[in-house]
Parts: sequence; structure tokens; C-alpha cells
Amino acid sequence: MILTLTPNPALDITYTVPGFRPHAEHRVTDVAQQAGGKGVNAARVLHALGRPVLALVPLGGATGAAVEDDLRHSGIPYARVPISGETRRTIAVADTTDTTLLNEPGPTLHPAEWAALRTRLTDLLPGAQALILAGSLPPGTPDDAYADLIRLAHAHAVPVVLDTSGPALTAALPSRPTAVKPNAAELRAATGLSDPAQAAARLRTAGAQSVVASLGPDGLLATTPTGTWRAHPPLTLSGNPAGAGDSVVAALAAGLADATPWPDLLANAAALSAATVLTPHAGTFDPTAYHHFTTP
Amino acid sequence: MILTLTPNPALDITYTVPGFRPHAEHRVTDVAQQAGGKGVNAARVLHALGRPVLALVPLGGATGAAVEDDLRHSGIPYARVPISGETRRTIAVADTTDTTLLNEPGPTLHPAEWAALRTRLTDLLPGAQALILAGSLPPGTPDDAYADLIRLAHAHAVPVVLDTSGPALTAALPSRPTAVKPNAAELRAATGLSDPAQAAARLRTAGAQSVVASLGPDGLLATTPTGTWRAHPPLTLSGNPAGAGDSVVAALAAGLADATPWPDLLANAAALSAATVLTPHAGTFDPTAYHHFTTP
Repeated sequence: MILTLTPNPALDITYTVPGFRPHAEHRVTDVAQQAGGKGVNAARVLHALGRPVLALVPLGGATGAAVEDDLRHSGIPYARVPISGETRRTIAVADTTDTTLLNEPGPTLHPAEWAALRTRLTDLLPGAQALILAGSLPPGTPDDAYADLIRLAHAHAVPVVLDTSGPALTAALPSRPTAVKPNAAELRAATGLSDPAQAAARLRTAGAQSVVASLGPDGLLATTPTGTWRAHPPLTLSGNPAGAGDSVVAALAAGLADATPWPDLLANAAALSAATVLTPHAGTFDPTAYHHFTTP
Repeated sequence: MILTLTPNPALDITYTVPGFRPHAEHRVTDVAQQAGGKGVNAARVLHALGRPVLALVPLGGATGAAVEDDLRHSGIPYARVPISGETRRTIAVADTTDTTLLNEPGPTLHPAEWAALRTRLTDLLPGAQALILAGSLPPGTPDDAYADLIRLAHAHAVPVVLDTSGPALTAALPSRPTAVKPNAAELRAATGLSDPAQAAARLRTAGAQSVVASLGPDGLLATTPTGTWRAHPPLTLSGNPAGAGDSVVAALAAGLADATPWPDLLANAAALSAATVLTPHAGTFDPTAYHHFTTP
């Protein structure tokens, strides 16, 4: 089983609004919503691939209940730690041009709630082949919270894929995550370097064992203990990039769990990411395109 | 008791987002939410004025539960008709300049659900001094649904204030609502006339007994069987106009219930509306300012 932890999950709401413009009143023509947060999206992808997965999430309030409804409805195995705060929402407003994102900060996690989440993770780790730690840390959680969980995973010899940014990423590096997956902007923010290869090397120096950078149309760049590889997207794509990075994380965790060689792992991650761009929502991919991209 | 019916209520969510612009990702700095919809806002105002009120609403799903939570928490007396659909949300994104509105269409009301709402209204009408019918009709409801309810109120000799727009307004006029409260844009849309006085006269010809037009900074214009009056805002205001019209509706219903003479009724409505502009959310007003505006 691949275990995902999303400490700040969300109800992801997508509004279709033709001709969206600020300071106007709009009638939403379509409303879609699903359980979200980077780790939940990765779990959704792994579940669709037929891979045993468990999504661990703190949930609270009416929005937490809506997230749980969707997890149950989607058939994604999950474990829930109840919290007193209200789980956050994100709103994606999609018009014909592009998407506007509104992200609520999410509820504060009290120390006892974080401790309960950590205990639940500890109980689940012995059954895990890989651990995904993904997304922002909720308000109230110390920056080095991921560092502690990575050490816990190491103690169980479970490889860890970390997908976060800012201080949560920087503070986690010394505990030596198996792989981190920054995008170009996150790499630049974490290192001050604009060259992805130099920035990735910097993150390795700071503690990351491997760095898999998702560079949008430039594909993936993996900097690892055994070498550096690039994977290009299987074709030039237009679509919705939401969730493309989460699919890379899913493929990365599956590949680490199976000890897949890096070139194969990366090619698979690029294919899954491209198949995700072809669908409108994070956590879903076009299975026909994925099959096509991965068939030699 | 003043009865309000809001056939398409909402959970009104307000996001504070400094520097909001389309096609960007934003972190929401503040989240506020409350039960909303025009009739609910009017009920909130009347309740704050110490006036006995009852808000009748169809509610469904997790969002309906959140609306009910807020009604209970706010102490607004309400009656709920359960529906199978999910109550809608509205999102107001407030930046330093102005507000961007995203309105979900709301759930379809099945004929049996509308019938249950109508039955509940019929049961409550004998105890009502005035009825407010406010907001859009939910999908699945015929355009003349308000016309039927107005006839029902007439049968109980209960005055009706109707605040809606488009086909729901036009189709209701022949049943002779006691008063309608269009704003300038709604007046223009309903009649094709840009002069408010001419447009109001046209609505009276079509069946409205009185027309109270809310004209923003130009105040209120009442066209009634006993004459025409204007009320100017007590001062030039800057603030949030959300809910100003709902406060006019509340004052109008209270005035009709008390048989207040039109000049006094209008002056009170203008004061309440102005005191509403001074607060950030619909359905709330600045009581000190209101007291000041209404003290000779």
C-alpha cells in the first residue's frame, strides 16, 4: 500500500464562468467539486491505476464532511483524523482562457490534533511501501513538521516523496527525504537559482536524496544519487495543468515502491502527467492516452 | 410576524483577497460566511430590529446544513423544507477596489418540493402581517410561481413585497403584488425604459400596486396609488452596497404591516439602507448610524 498524508486537504470546487472578469457579477454555469489537496490527488491517481493506496487526512466541519463524502463515493481508501476546525475550500474559476485560483488558508491544527495525525501515520507506516507527504502545512503546525515524519518513515525503511514548498520544504531537507518534487517556481523560491539543474543540485546538498523537478512543457528533470535524467512530455499538450504535478508524485512513489530504474520511472511519470493534462480535474487522467504514451 | 420566503437561498461566502486579478493564484486572507439570499437577508435585518420574523427556506445537502447552522447561530427564526438537491453557494471576492461575485445557480426544485414549500407557506400565512417573496426562482420552478403565492397571500389579506427580476418579476405582476422593489438595472431590463419614473409607471400598469425603485446614490422612488415620493440617502456614503436593497425590502414590509404613511416609510427605508452600506455584509446594518439617521 502507498500511504499519502495531506495535512491541509481541501474541497476543490471548480466553477465554469465564461468571460470571467473582476468586479463583475457572474452566474456560474457549471459547478464541480471533489476531495482535493496534493496527496489526495495523488491517491486518486494511484487508486485509478489499481494500486493499493490509503489517503490519510485530518477533516473537520461541514466541508470536511463533504470531502469525506467524495472520498467514499470515489472509492479511494482513506483514514480520517477528526479536527475541531473547518476543512478548507479552494475555488478554481475556469473561463475559456485560463483558471483563477482562490485558496482558503485552512484550519489551525492544534498540537493534540497533529499528535493524533502523527500517531495514525505511525500505525500505518509498517504496511506502507512508500509515503507521500504533500501540500502545505496547516496553520499552527511548525515548519519542521515534515522533517519529523520523514525520520519516522526512515525508521520503518519506507521511502518518502515530499511535495511542498517554502519553509515547509526547506525545513524538511535535512531529514533526507527520498525524493522531493518541486516545480520551476518552487525550485527558484527555495534556492534563488533560476537554472533548474543548479537549483536541484542545491536541494540535494541540503539533504534531498533525489530531486525530480517538474518543468511544465520542459518535462521532468531527475537529479539522483545514480545520475541525472530528463524526460520530455510525450507530445506538446494543451489542456488543464492542474494535478499534473500530483500525477508525477504518484508515479514517483509507485516507482520507488517497486525500485523501478530511474529512466523507466521518469518516462512513466511524464506519461501519467501528460495524460492528466488532458482531463479537466486534478487527480484524474485520460487512461487511453496514458496507455498510448506508455506503449513502446 | 413578517414572513419571508427565499426559494433559492444560499451560503454567502466572502473572501478577502488583496489585489485580485484573473488567471492568477490567490491566497484568501479572510473567509466569512453566512446564510443568505435576499429574503434571508431581509429577515436578518428585521430580526436585528427586534421585529418578529420567520424565514422560510428550502434547504438540502451539506451547504443547506451550513445555512441552517448559521440561521440557528444567528437566532433568526426559520422554517425549513428539506429538498434532495444541494443548496447553492455564492462567493464574493472583495479586494481593495470592489467585489467580484460568483453565483451558483442552485438546485432544481422538484414539483413535490415546491408543493411542500407552498403548503408550508399556506400554513404560516394566517400568522403573517406581511410576506416578502425575494430572490431568484430555483431551476425547475415555473416563471409564474410567485404569481400563485401572491394570490395566496391576497386570499389571507397579507400584503406582499416582491423583490425579484427578469421573467419571475414580469410573470408575477398580473397577480397584483402590494409592492415590488426593482433596482435601476432591473427596472430597465423589465421595461426597456431608462427613465425610472416612466419604468415604474409601466410596472404599475402591468399590475404592481406600488413600485419602490432603489436607485443607489439617487435614493428611493416610490410610485404608489396615493402619489409619488422620493427619498434621498441621508448622506453620501461609501461602503459595501451588498444588502442595501434587502434592507429596503425589510423596511417596506414592516411599513406595510404597520400601515405607515409612504413618506415616513420611505425615509425609514432610506435610513436603513444607508446604515446597511456602512457594514461589510448583507443583512447587517450599523445600528448607531440607523438611529442617527432616523432621529429628527
